[in-house]
Amino acid sequence: MRSIEVCFTPDLIRQHSLKEKTVVVVDIFRATSCIVTGLAHGVKAIKPIAEIEETLLHGPKGYVMAGERGGVVVEGFDIGNSPFEYQQDYLASRKVAISTTNGSQAVLKSQGASEILVGAFLNLEALAMYLVESKRDILIHCAGWKGTPNLEDSLFAGALIDEVAESLTISGDSALIAHQLFISAHENLLATALKSSHAERLKNFGTEQDLVFCMEESKYAIVPKLIEGELVIPT
Amino acid sequence: MRSIEVCFTPDLIRQHSLKEKTVVVVDIFRATSCIVTGLAHGVKAIKPIAEIEETLLHGPKGYVMAGERGGVVVEGFDIGNSPFEYQQDYLASRKVAISTTNGSQAVLKSQGASEILVGAFLNLEALAMYLVESKRDILIHCAGWKGTPNLEDSLFAGALIDEVAESLTISGDSALIAHQLFISAHENLLATALKSSHAERLKNFGTEQDLVFCMEESKYAIVPKLIEGELVIPT
Repeated sequence: MRSIEVCFTPDLIRQHSLKEKTVVVVDIFRATSCIVTGLAHGVKAIKPIAEIEETLLHGPKGYVMAGERGGVVVEGFDIGNSPFEYQQDYLASRKVAISTTNGSQAVLKSQGASEILVGAFLNLEALAMYLVESKRDILIHCAGWKGTPNLEDSLFAGALIDEVAESLTISGDSALIAHQLFISAHENLLATALKSSHAERLKNFGTEQDLVFCMEESKYAIVPKLIEGELVIPT
Repeated sequence: MRSIEVCFTPDLIRQHSLKEKTVVVVDIFRATSCIVTGLAHGVKAIKPIAEIEETLLHGPKGYVMAGERGGVVVEGFDIGNSPFEYQQDYLASRKVAISTTNGSQAVLKSQGASEILVGAFLNLEALAMYLVESKRDILIHCAGWKGTPNLEDSLFAGALIDEVAESLTISGDSALIAHQLFISAHENLLATALKSSHAERLKNFGTEQDLVFCMEESKYAIVPKLIEGELVIPT
């Protein structure tokens, strides 16, 4: 049987083999929730970029520039990191260049995998169906918070494992921990996620409606995939 | 209020400040369980050492040489990494030099803290009482498994947090995850711990009785502390 494992933070990704694997990148608050929302609302492609400076070079090339540092929109960028910003009509058919504290880095550090997908509660069911029918071992790569594990990404990892547990072998203790965490919290998922340190930080920026939105389950039936450096809905 | 935080693996310790903190090193299967057992049974001091070669230099100095790599006793060492070996009469009043896959490394990577203690289920209650009455912020440093988090150390971190939660603020998501994990598993703690990847590996070496012993709670009322490079019961 194929296996599913979890890496709690990009700082531990070197402990995992990426070769021949499907990697699911997760940054629930808020990068991967934004990516799923944007693509579901017609954004053509989203290019993850590590550095602010390089992102700014993409404006003149026609990209909408998006992202944050420490929860705040970057000066000179067009939009920040709220899933509501990604629902604006003018973004349809545009490309977005995104640079965020944790999420962009997790995508970039997943390079070497056979396939890189993006996961969020917003596309949980579609993603799980895709994974059950795919042929590779799976690694859930949580963006975490500045190199440490976070609660909301771990909860999502557990939720995704729970969805596919009949078809895949749970591999390694990080996956066991995430799964047990989700099982114990799933009846109060929103309340549990809002207790996370990151949620507490973001609430200071008035983003509580963002957080509630990011915890909505299976709102969008899409599975974004990295193709030639950009996240798209494969045709 | 003072805070208590968790680091799931020595590979993430650089994300935490050690300054002015009390660090509790944890390697339930089996190094810190052995250390607590040995000191409780009269071993005079236990010196954690990273490398096998350096450990071998301690034999001629009168140390009992102890430790394992990958769960197996090292060739040339006197004892391995079973808590039952640490209960032998001939060890009383002797010093032990210990080098293990994960545990020794976690002690050594905790240097810089104000105080380094050793925790296991075997001394849970005594350790919790000590921490409640101490004056510093606390960091639980889990040894994990070759750089990744493991289930049994995370369960212990959660158990210790649960013991002191009325007196200390839970700081950071790793501590929230560990605490939630313990709460959900505490009625089946042994069964949960035996599901860990490390337990599965160790069972292949016929060590199941070791694992059951390591999960016994508060058998010994001691708090080992690192003093001048050696773990002792402070007088």
